[in-house]
Amino acid sequence: MKEAIREALKGLSTQGIPIGSVIVYQGKIIGRGHNQRIQKKSATLHGEMDALEKAGRLPAHIYQESVLYTTLSPCAMCTGAILLYKIPHVVIGEHQSFMGEETLLKSKGVNVEVLNDAACIQMMTDFIEKNPSLWNEDIGV
Amino acid sequence: MKEAIREALKGLSTQGIPIGSVIVYQGKIIGRGHNQRIQKKSATLHGEMDALEKAGRLPAHIYQESVLYTTLSPCAMCTGAILLYKIPHVVIGEHQSFMGEETLLKSKGVNVEVLNDAACIQMMTDFIEKNPSLWNEDIGV
Repeated sequence: MKEAIREALKGLSTQGIPIGSVIVYQGKIIGRGHNQRIQKKSATLHGEMDALEKAGRLPAHIYQESVLYTTLSPCAMCTGAILLYKIPHVVIGEHQSFMGEETLLKSKGVNVEVLNDAACIQMMTDFIEKNPSLWNEDIGV
Repeated sequence: MKEAIREALKGLSTQGIPIGSVIVYQGKIIGRGHNQRIQKKSATLHGEMDALEKAGRLPAHIYQESVLYTTLSPCAMCTGAILLYKIPHVVIGEHQSFMGEETLLKSKGVNVEVLNDAACIQMMTDFIEKNPSLWNEDIGV
């Protein structure tokens, strides 16, 4: 999670939305990314999607033995990507500022861990308070 | 749908997976794309995602008044993106070669139309027959 937070802060330092994610396979980070809505004018590169994209084309079994870490509860799109690739384990920094589709993930057998990490909560709370319209845009509101 | 098929064929002609998509708002195409797994080594740019990405950053209400056309039934990831942005109407070329998450879309109130278009069916059947491993990679199998 430390590395996912590092990605989120990298996003923040480039005027972006501070959500970061890493994908870990056999103890090694194989993909890392952060929300790129502002930086790349992207409607699809949420933190988790950017990490998947950076990981590149991988055989199915790699995803199926990986853990995805994300600083914030995954939205419907990122949840869908996790389900498509059958990532079995998702570690979430927090779900206080935004509750994603954790129920759907669990219903499909994904192991969902929520850390309630104070640094993640603070980071998103601050961002949303200062940038409500950007945040709403990111979640289609 | 003609334009989504045109996108799929554009993908095919660049050695890609022939799935295309367009997003229509007030009768105009605001985003068009095709699967970019091969061309961009992308794990996230399915046809629908590429169309969303090409449409760029848009206010929520635009998505909520748009129709998404796709040559093939949308997978979990693309379904999630449709739900995130609350696109209310999805027109699907076919769901014979691959059945996506249409039940989930309908359960969330999305109007799902399936055309059973012969050209779409033929295009995917041919591709899957000739490239089974590429196709499996695309759907995380």
